[in-house]
Amino acid sequence: MATGRIIVYGGRGALGAACVNHFKAINWWVANVDLSINDKADANVMVPRDASWAQQEDVVVRELTKVLDGEKVNAVICVAGGWAGGNTTKELCQQSDLMWRQSVWSSIIAATVATRFLMPGGVIALTGAKAALEGTPGMIGYGLAKAAVHQLTKSLGSRDSGLPEGALAVAILPVTLDTEMNRKWMPNADFGTWTPLSFVAELFYKWVKGEDRPKTGSLVTLVTENYVTDLVIH
Amino acid sequence: MATGRIIVYGGRGALGAACVNHFKAINWWVANVDLSINDKADANVMVPRDASWAQQEDVVVRELTKVLDGEKVNAVICVAGGWAGGNTTKELCQQSDLMWRQSVWSSIIAATVATRFLMPGGVIALTGAKAALEGTPGMIGYGLAKAAVHQLTKSLGSRDSGLPEGALAVAILPVTLDTEMNRKWMPNADFGTWTPLSFVAELFYKWVKGEDRPKTGSLVTLVTENYVTDLVIH
Repeated sequence: MATGRIIVYGGRGALGAACVNHFKAINWWVANVDLSINDKADANVMVPRDASWAQQEDVVVRELTKVLDGEKVNAVICVAGGWAGGNTTKELCQQSDLMWRQSVWSSIIAATVATRFLMPGGVIALTGAKAALEGTPGMIGYGLAKAAVHQLTKSLGSRDSGLPEGALAVAILPVTLDTEMNRKWMPNADFGTWTPLSFVAELFYKWVKGEDRPKTGSLVTLVTENYVTDLVIH
Repeated sequence: MATGRIIVYGGRGALGAACVNHFKAINWWVANVDLSINDKADANVMVPRDASWAQQEDVVVRELTKVLDGEKVNAVICVAGGWAGGNTTKELCQQSDLMWRQSVWSSIIAATVATRFLMPGGVIALTGAKAALEGTPGMIGYGLAKAAVHQLTKSLGSRDSGLPEGALAVAILPVTLDTEMNRKWMPNADFGTWTPLSFVAELFYKWVKGEDRPKTGSLVTLVTENYVTDLVIH
């Protein structure tokens, strides 16, 4: 018998897979919502890549309704996303459109999912970026999409947002996550300043359990120095 | 002979038309970029409504290249936009998608236009919203799109954004503009707290002339009380 239920939006990505593993290890029921299957998850909901935003939402809600079969979940975490660089001279619409789809479409659908399936007092966690608290001239589309996620988090944490009673809406704002891909592309970086995926998964678990919850609507920056991560709450 | 040149993105809307009139009255060359023609403008560039974001950008850049015929402009102001309400229970994707197209597509294309056609030291002004500095649970799509415009403004105001040397990137953050439509829909409001369109047009003109320019990347809130508008610069 599962001790809790969680929906991981983007459960096939590096951070998402780490979260799936973490919650499976403590015997939770885990649903992965992504473009590809994660074999570790109890249920997989495939997002139709070429569908419109609203169509994607329809599919995700319909499929989750089936696999949940009337049950509510303790948490919805959205760790889908991506990165693209470029200033105004570099395919500005294209980079912005891609970042919007990867970060904002997923976050908004996660908000709908939380509205439908999260239990009172549950957690919805989104993924922002510390960089987007300021201007990001070398990655304009990325920055504005993450800024939209930050403001969405504040809206979700405000009264009458539509989320269930007592829900915690929160965004993590990483600097750099310690993923295989980042190690591959930045082999000479100081890994001691990168945030371990297990730290993030454990952090989500603490919040779901009700430990050290920040105020709802908070943006939580993850600052890692010498392999130690501190939280800075905005 | 025109004394200056300006591109008004959204020059058929209430604020846009006020800006077109203001700059025509002082004998400037004015281009309107919008879904519909503004007869007062010297040139009209029609945005194809059903085209993709990148296609819209292509059309706008191509048509402006023609009508400008090698000239640069003193200013690009984007006053396109719209409003939709709703919390997470009210067609969240649809409201967010509409707001994104109306506020962010237009702002990003304006950024591309400025990159291509703005003279050094010129002005690009975008339109945000004071409300989006905090959470906006009753208008979630609106708030996140405006927050994206705010962060875009900060990016454009940062070094190496791609804008011409010495350009001023700025966003106005109105509370409520004193438009015919707002008077129609909110007939019992206190109009003394609404910002007159002529104030905004005059403000743009001052910045274009180089008077009282805020730091590039600034968000400028327009706070109107008893028919007097003060600027609060973030």
